[in-house]
Amino acid sequence: MEARINRERLWHTLSELGLIGRSPTGGINRLSLDAQDLLARSHVHALMLEAGLSVRQDEAGNLIGRLEGDCIDAPAVITGSHIDTVTEAGKFDGALGVLAGIEVLRTVKELGVKHHCPLEVICFTDEEGVRFGIGYLGSRAMAGEWSPEWLKAKDKDGISLNEAMIQADIDPSLAERAARPAGSIRAYLELHIEQGRVLEDANLPCGLATAIYGYRWLLVKFKGHADHAGTTPMALRRDALLAAAEAVIAIEKLAIRSGGTATVGTLKLSPGAVNVIPDEVIFTIDYRHSSIQALTEMGQQMETTLESLAFRRGLTVEVSETDGATPVTCSEQLTSMLTEVCGSIGIKAMPMVCGAGHDAVAIHSLTEIGLILVRSKDGISHHREEWSSLEDCSDGADILLHSMLRVAQKVLK
Amino acid sequence: MEARINRERLWHTLSELGLIGRSPTGGINRLSLDAQDLLARSHVHALMLEAGLSVRQDEAGNLIGRLEGDCIDAPAVITGSHIDTVTEAGKFDGALGVLAGIEVLRTVKELGVKHHCPLEVICFTDEEGVRFGIGYLGSRAMAGEWSPEWLKAKDKDGISLNEAMIQADIDPSLAERAARPAGSIRAYLELHIEQGRVLEDANLPCGLATAIYGYRWLLVKFKGHADHAGTTPMALRRDALLAAAEAVIAIEKLAIRSGGTATVGTLKLSPGAVNVIPDEVIFTIDYRHSSIQALTEMGQQMETTLESLAFRRGLTVEVSETDGATPVTCSEQLTSMLTEVCGSIGIKAMPMVCGAGHDAVAIHSLTEIGLILVRSKDGISHHREEWSSLEDCSDGADILLHSMLRVAQKVLK
Repeated sequence: MEARINRERLWHTLSELGLIGRSPTGGINRLSLDAQDLLARSHVHALMLEAGLSVRQDEAGNLIGRLEGDCIDAPAVITGSHIDTVTEAGKFDGALGVLAGIEVLRTVKELGVKHHCPLEVICFTDEEGVRFGIGYLGSRAMAGEWSPEWLKAKDKDGISLNEAMIQADIDPSLAERAARPAGSIRAYLELHIEQGRVLEDANLPCGLATAIYGYRWLLVKFKGHADHAGTTPMALRRDALLAAAEAVIAIEKLAIRSGGTATVGTLKLSPGAVNVIPDEVIFTIDYRHSSIQALTEMGQQMETTLESLAFRRGLTVEVSETDGATPVTCSEQLTSMLTEVCGSIGIKAMPMVCGAGHDAVAIHSLTEIGLILVRSKDGISHHREEWSSLEDCSDGADILLHSMLRVAQKVLK
Repeated sequence: MEARINRERLWHTLSELGLIGRSPTGGINRLSLDAQDLLARSHVHALMLEAGLSVRQDEAGNLIGRLEGDCIDAPAVITGSHIDTVTEAGKFDGALGVLAGIEVLRTVKELGVKHHCPLEVICFTDEEGVRFGIGYLGSRAMAGEWSPEWLKAKDKDGISLNEAMIQADIDPSLAERAARPAGSIRAYLELHIEQGRVLEDANLPCGLATAIYGYRWLLVKFKGHADHAGTTPMALRRDALLAAAEAVIAIEKLAIRSGGTATVGTLKLSPGAVNVIPDEVIFTIDYRHSSIQALTEMGQQMETTLESLAFRRGLTVEVSETDGATPVTCSEQLTSMLTEVCGSIGIKAMPMVCGAGHDAVAIHSLTEIGLILVRSKDGISHHREEWSSLEDCSDGADILLHSMLRVAQKVLK
């Protein structure tokens, strides 16, 4: 079958949605349920209708466009993503998945391709979690993980999630009803930009995720002694920065050895004078792995390393975990089907681990997931310079089209 | 000869001077030529008169107390230091040298000890350089290094050095006349607190400096690429912090190997988010050595190391020198005489390199210098907790007494 999505139409919808919430500097600002996000949701709602889908909004505000198949009672084959953004964002993160999903269903309908299972495209509420500090809000609600506690969370202007939902005509007291029974969904496939440089480095338009990294964040404090740089010989020092520097190097080695990643992204020292030896260094570690066992081992090795570095230099060290998420494995069956699809429609794609989290992480508890990644220029994301080409976005959407159809046509058992 | 200074009297003058400019938190604030410093100068002037010295203020505001010897035309044997402070300082830095000098001359006069050369104690103007950014102001003027350019320098309230000198009744246009001919000074001996932990570590009250460290300050900037911590595999990173961490470790090794010191005291990274790889790290290096050749070699090795670290990680590096001072060698003859004095009066002292600069650095160009250091509790200085014991301060003053007399009695040829 040589069905293809309409590339120019997809590109046009991406450009159009990218105008909503755009600031004078070119960054996009659609924090979940704010005025611009609500405007974008109406726009997407209209696009779904225009595509010939039946549209409903569930109790958590997720917008669901549905195209019935031959069997109305069959479990749905779903794709989705989000259209809320971080501040000064780009126009592809999330939006590509929603708009490509609509384009895919529109193409299926236009071409009159037969399929057994119903197809759905979902625009999830608040994936980014920037406004209220609660990420994957809509997808977690759908996966039955809604918590009424979330309603108390407030944005920087003091508006609670409860108030924001009411203002958006979503009844907060009913949100938990957004949960869907596991049997109602056959599979979840998401298309998302890579937000990294792996595909660009490999010169490939698309990637097929085998897993989504789990991560943990640590806050580390080394404490030593502040002495004068001139009057304190090297042997008498208890320099907190030297231990931190050794830690930074050790953490890199550990990440390479484990096959995961680790990053020291913030580091502050005191007292911070040219001629005073630092007595305190506080830094963060972000470490990630696709295997929960490896992630746990990385954490244990880090703590051991930090303690031994502190001991050797006569320092104290404090380590605390501030955040984390468990790794998610993509369905082997779906990933190998995606590989076959790529072969049959002539799109080059490679298996890879996805380093960033998406709605698929939440939906993973509900059904098996597959994740198609699209090359990001220079790996830039969460920034107005975020970019993926028309060709790459369209290739990704074509993979989504054919893979949704395969599952919906019960080619995949 | 068993002459000794009056320990309680010295301690009393230290305590008394420590009350001038003392803030509610206990730190001392006498920035050069401010109201509190002027008050302290009057107090020192009075102490010099009380000690029976003839007192004059030279054209750079240096207060000079003099005790004539047998020969009025003989070159003077001088001691000195300063009473201006950094902000929230302790009461020993500088003050000990001035007050012990007054106590030494007072003791000589009281005991009627005969000496050939005149003895002088000098309270130098603005050693710290905190207010106008010009350190060793008075001692450099005396060494013939006065620069009229300095007069334009302003403090944080916009008051120029020119204005401050006029307010203090010092005619700025005459300041260069403070220069003394080289032949007019036989030797300069300074007593100062160590401001480090070497003597405490060695369990000794006093040290005899063989040299004063020269130093250089570098500002280093590594520039790489900011990528997402999750989506960027270790191999694709250009992490500026990793290079900086390697530099910090390499700099320590280099300092140990060279026998000097090196310190990274400030370090700032951008963008500074937990999950973003740092693309820029800016840090300072303070490195010191007693040999100018070794200092130069350290600098060359650092630049080579920084460039190679940058190259290996695909970064750029910029290095600039922001400050520096040449190492100063103490007189071997004076230092061995000081060692003999310690032996003869039963005070334990060790030879050592002095890590901090003092007025002796400036006077070095005028005459040979000797420097006696006194143990600092916990190495703390430039802080209200700065402390040296009555016993250690007195031991230092007794060394000063006997060594000034030896030179003035022409025991030292």
